[in-house]
Amino acid sequence: MPELRQNRFTKEWVIMATERAKRPEELRAQREARPSLPHYSDTCPFCPGNERLAPPAVMAIPAHDNWRVRVVPNKFPALAREGQLTRKIERSRRSMNGIGIHDVIVETPDHALTTALLPVEQVAEILRCYRQRFTEVSADPRIAHVTIFKNHGVAAGTSLEHPHAQLIGTPVISSQVRYRVYEALRHYDEFGECIFCEALKEDLEEPARVVLASELFVAVEPFASGTPFATYIYPRRHMASFGDINPAEIIDLAAVLKSVLAKLYVGLRNPDFNYAIRTAPHENAGVLYYHWYVSVIPRLTRIAGFELGSGMFINTVLPEAAAEFLRDINPQDGGPVA
Amino acid sequence: MPELRQNRFTKEWVIMATERAKRPEELRAQREARPSLPHYSDTCPFCPGNERLAPPAVMAIPAHDNWRVRVVPNKFPALAREGQLTRKIERSRRSMNGIGIHDVIVETPDHALTTALLPVEQVAEILRCYRQRFTEVSADPRIAHVTIFKNHGVAAGTSLEHPHAQLIGTPVISSQVRYRVYEALRHYDEFGECIFCEALKEDLEEPARVVLASELFVAVEPFASGTPFATYIYPRRHMASFGDINPAEIIDLAAVLKSVLAKLYVGLRNPDFNYAIRTAPHENAGVLYYHWYVSVIPRLTRIAGFELGSGMFINTVLPEAAAEFLRDINPQDGGPVA
Repeated sequence: MPELRQNRFTKEWVIMATERAKRPEELRAQREARPSLPHYSDTCPFCPGNERLAPPAVMAIPAHDNWRVRVVPNKFPALAREGQLTRKIERSRRSMNGIGIHDVIVETPDHALTTALLPVEQVAEILRCYRQRFTEVSADPRIAHVTIFKNHGVAAGTSLEHPHAQLIGTPVISSQVRYRVYEALRHYDEFGECIFCEALKEDLEEPARVVLASELFVAVEPFASGTPFATYIYPRRHMASFGDINPAEIIDLAAVLKSVLAKLYVGLRNPDFNYAIRTAPHENAGVLYYHWYVSVIPRLTRIAGFELGSGMFINTVLPEAAAEFLRDINPQDGGPVA
Repeated sequence: MPELRQNRFTKEWVIMATERAKRPEELRAQREARPSLPHYSDTCPFCPGNERLAPPAVMAIPAHDNWRVRVVPNKFPALAREGQLTRKIERSRRSMNGIGIHDVIVETPDHALTTALLPVEQVAEILRCYRQRFTEVSADPRIAHVTIFKNHGVAAGTSLEHPHAQLIGTPVISSQVRYRVYEALRHYDEFGECIFCEALKEDLEEPARVVLASELFVAVEPFASGTPFATYIYPRRHMASFGDINPAEIIDLAAVLKSVLAKLYVGLRNPDFNYAIRTAPHENAGVLYYHWYVSVIPRLTRIAGFELGSGMFINTVLPEAAAEFLRDINPQDGGPVA
């Protein structure tokens, strides 16, 4: 019998289609082998030595030619960096000029290394870079919200092979983010507790959906997961904004993020994936009712007409089965993980 | 300069990325030729003569072997047809057993004919069938909401070639639908007018985004369109529920739907697409503040990490440019349209 589950953070219902259920191995079996990449490509704007092919860097760690992580403005930005915000109201139409920040974070000098294969210290360097740019862009008075995200593979929407993430600072807060923050606020006002902290506590007490738990972070498959192997990584410490992550947490998150991605890399054979840091907007930093997390979404299935037409998702892999599968994978056994 | 536009029905912001702007022809040029299909396949469960390969029909027009449209239960349903609803509340977890109706609507006996190529009278027959099943399933006291949708092509999530649509009746109303209905209600309570009727009136007065207007329906590219060539088809008459469409409107909608799909078929070379009928839930049928429509979404681009992480979309084709492109296409000139 299929089951309907409600996402407690969005109140959205998800159909767990057990009649159509797929074993994790079936999703893997459909995937084609991916050609291995060279460590350097002379046409890649993100490879060392080709820096002239991209706009001048915004920052680099360290700040010289032998950088390990480097941030450049996106050459084809979704939003324009310069200018003043102007709202336009014409009859029922609401618009603004498209001011914002759109960065590319080059995550390693090596063209071939995906996050699952990087040393933990390099992943920590990437997260330090995320935090620094998050803080800098959030301080721009024109920017209301910052989203940091990664597209890995064609199905995840990337066109460039070299490992990179992106940051987009928008002058508005999306209604989707507003709605989540508002639902969390309502929960806090009724129960006096952060809804994410409460979910985390329950998941740790009944750990069927826990993938791994470190000292400072916990990776879980959400109860009402909309897509197979969607994984959320929560800090144990209550924090509304990603900007408040501390140095010890960065090191711990680096190990957990690498481990989750390495389990997916080995278990599902280097699937295309996205991840995004879901954080409270700058204006809500410090609130007691919201909690940031990293949402990792392998792109194993396609959104179809039902999802587009109803907003509800159909998931063919139970999160408990996905968690069990991922818990049992030791990246050291199964693949070339550094 | 890019532009941010707000969707007035959801209050969501969309980035119109004019720096990345693509001409409609560029989206077409990326598409590969699609192999033409045979008119009959002996392994297809939806071809005439193979009816034994699918579950027994729920209805057919006409109700004998020479059917033109036929409805069968989905062989791999997302929800189970039989059973009583039970809610389960365990700590913070909310779930229900997965009861619902999941039909497949076989839209023509011909394996090869997509909607763009069907005679208008056949499209009307399909819409009559949609309406009848919509009404029947809505009358099931276990069903709260009915979504009728079509997936055309692999990128749109279909696995079967034979032209078909689907109907899913769910025992819950998704929070996405609830939110749209609620926003429409707020608008009505402030302005005393259906927000969709008002948008339609404005679009007809300033027709830059109108693709075509018939006696009873209007096809427009929405002002804050999230994806290239998304097209909404509205009835001119105020109606909250698709179930209230009348016989004359069915014939008119058949011509408009076929025409929109034929313009996409010729202009963008048979793109993968979804469409869905977005209607008020059964319990809100007859309200003055909601208005049903058909949402047609060509699947030309991919959702990436920014969309997943923020809820905001980046669109590289201005709806005004898409409307102009589609207005100028005469399906009779450009392709084998019946």
